[in-house]
Amino acid sequence: MSAYGLHRVVAPVGVLPQQADRLDADPTLRPDEVIVDVERLNLDAASFRQLREAHGTGPAIRDAVVKIIEERGKMHNPVTGSGGMLLGTVREVGQESSLGLTPGDRIATLVSLTLTPLRITDGLADWDGAGEQVPCAGTAVLFGRSIAAVLPDDIPDHLALSVLDVCGAPALTDRVVRRDGTPSVLVIGGGGKSGSLSLAAARRAGASRLVALVPTESEAQALRDAGLADEIVIADARDPVAVSKAVGGQVNVTVVCVDVPGCEHGAVLATADGGTIVFFSMATSFQAAALGAEGLAADVEMIIGNGYVPGHAAYALDLIRTEPGVRELFEARERQTART
Amino acid sequence: MSAYGLHRVVAPVGVLPQQADRLDADPTLRPDEVIVDVERLNLDAASFRQLREAHGTGPAIRDAVVKIIEERGKMHNPVTGSGGMLLGTVREVGQESSLGLTPGDRIATLVSLTLTPLRITDGLADWDGAGEQVPCAGTAVLFGRSIAAVLPDDIPDHLALSVLDVCGAPALTDRVVRRDGTPSVLVIGGGGKSGSLSLAAARRAGASRLVALVPTESEAQALRDAGLADEIVIADARDPVAVSKAVGGQVNVTVVCVDVPGCEHGAVLATADGGTIVFFSMATSFQAAALGAEGLAADVEMIIGNGYVPGHAAYALDLIRTEPGVRELFEARERQTART
Repeated sequence: MSAYGLHRVVAPVGVLPQQADRLDADPTLRPDEVIVDVERLNLDAASFRQLREAHGTGPAIRDAVVKIIEERGKMHNPVTGSGGMLLGTVREVGQESSLGLTPGDRIATLVSLTLTPLRITDGLADWDGAGEQVPCAGTAVLFGRSIAAVLPDDIPDHLALSVLDVCGAPALTDRVVRRDGTPSVLVIGGGGKSGSLSLAAARRAGASRLVALVPTESEAQALRDAGLADEIVIADARDPVAVSKAVGGQVNVTVVCVDVPGCEHGAVLATADGGTIVFFSMATSFQAAALGAEGLAADVEMIIGNGYVPGHAAYALDLIRTEPGVRELFEARERQTART
Repeated sequence: MSAYGLHRVVAPVGVLPQQADRLDADPTLRPDEVIVDVERLNLDAASFRQLREAHGTGPAIRDAVVKIIEERGKMHNPVTGSGGMLLGTVREVGQESSLGLTPGDRIATLVSLTLTPLRITDGLADWDGAGEQVPCAGTAVLFGRSIAAVLPDDIPDHLALSVLDVCGAPALTDRVVRRDGTPSVLVIGGGGKSGSLSLAAARRAGASRLVALVPTESEAQALRDAGLADEIVIADARDPVAVSKAVGGQVNVTVVCVDVPGCEHGAVLATADGGTIVFFSMATSFQAAALGAEGLAADVEMIIGNGYVPGHAAYALDLIRTEPGVRELFEARERQTART
């Protein structure tokens, strides 16, 4: 069980690191571990919002984060239950480590801070508490099962992190589409980050007909300019009948990337018997999907989008390098975020 | 869209029958429909509980149910959002119906009453309001996509209904196990209704190693007596480390049939990379499954248990006929329920 980091759990004994109250963050290397010199924490949005509301910005929020990390041995917000990820440089690699990392690699962790042993040595002195990006000095520990991506030299950090955030979607889309031969594919929410990457993945994997469904004409126009789909249709993903009419003939594979609740039935109606639906949206309801398919007597296989597929980070970064349409959509989104 | 019953939706126009406020329950046959003479409604447990708390038993609850059916054209509890199912006899079959039914067939519907046009003609005069079984006279309409099972002559109604309630689980288990060759299979909650049927299905489909996980020694003993698994292990399904230790070597296919929250991580830990998890439990959290697999870097395919698989009712009834161990578990459960 060492690959899951059970040996780093201090209390309560016997649970997984994510469930633990406290981890051992001592940066002494064990054979299957990797020690990282941390350069920056990215607190997840929900955690940062809660901390700011409780402590404001400035010294109080800084002290609160330092205290959490000291007490828990990890940046695991006890109120929100969430963490974030970190950037750093590999210091030491154990001889039994299976992560394929080398000292000096600049990496981002793709597993949550809620399960990553972390020690801070500078009291977060360089952080003003005003944003979720936390410059810091300290160390983190990766296990055999931790996931980390080496940051590429040729892609700006901010763009790479934005891609890595959703890199499970294109990798799993690739796998499902290839397994099906040359299926017709629908991506609901094709204009977003995971959606545009999934469209590019589906095309490469051999989709015979590629449909993107988006909510607005402006998103449709952006997708047309990017050239990522054969057909671009506009409908409210929460309206099953509207989705079905907009898509026309049912598809073999549907990929749901819209982060709003209530998209399960539209996906079911749009998918042919024998087909597959992959739900990447974290707003998906297990119950709505199960009961929806049953109520519509739809013989569809519904997959919970697992954020981990071997090779997912490299594959997504390759898409952003080689698909100008995808990169343009990501950069337009960043420009828009910067403005607001 | 007629197969989904859109033509029976009165208000609001354009939604699916389940989302509709009101359906047209006129028992005039259309070409792809089936008209059923209804003999009994089984209100779902949540709906009956709410109605009894609001109206007590006796005339008040009877009037409340009659009013819902008259106003909505279906037995769709507006508070709980749930329905139930019905028993009846096929009266008329449209020439374009694809359900394979014949006038005179005694059937149970396997789609919810929340989407089934229903008209009551006896004011529920024979129902005392004391239980969720509602004897009645009236008519219901089935669409091309409705699902109904012909009740067998050789199995008591109550046992058949108990089996049909969970008949999606063994059918999907059969499909997933066969697709994998001769995988090792774990059924978490193997002692329950869907669990015992899934064990029998997995063995028939060629499972090379068949493990059942149950919470107590008494359930383990019942399963040993029934002879449904190669190994029977005892653990709390909500404790991932305990599940992993109890199961030992990871399996290729895990089937989750425990109706308690928090079983996602144990299922992930017990399943080998490249394996498949089928979640039948309606207590499954989409988010816990997705984040759990990602946090554990587990390359597992996670399937939302769709209650509909073609042929599922006949397959499950065949299991109960030919697997004495399964039948004994079902009958023991009924005896226990009758006592409490």
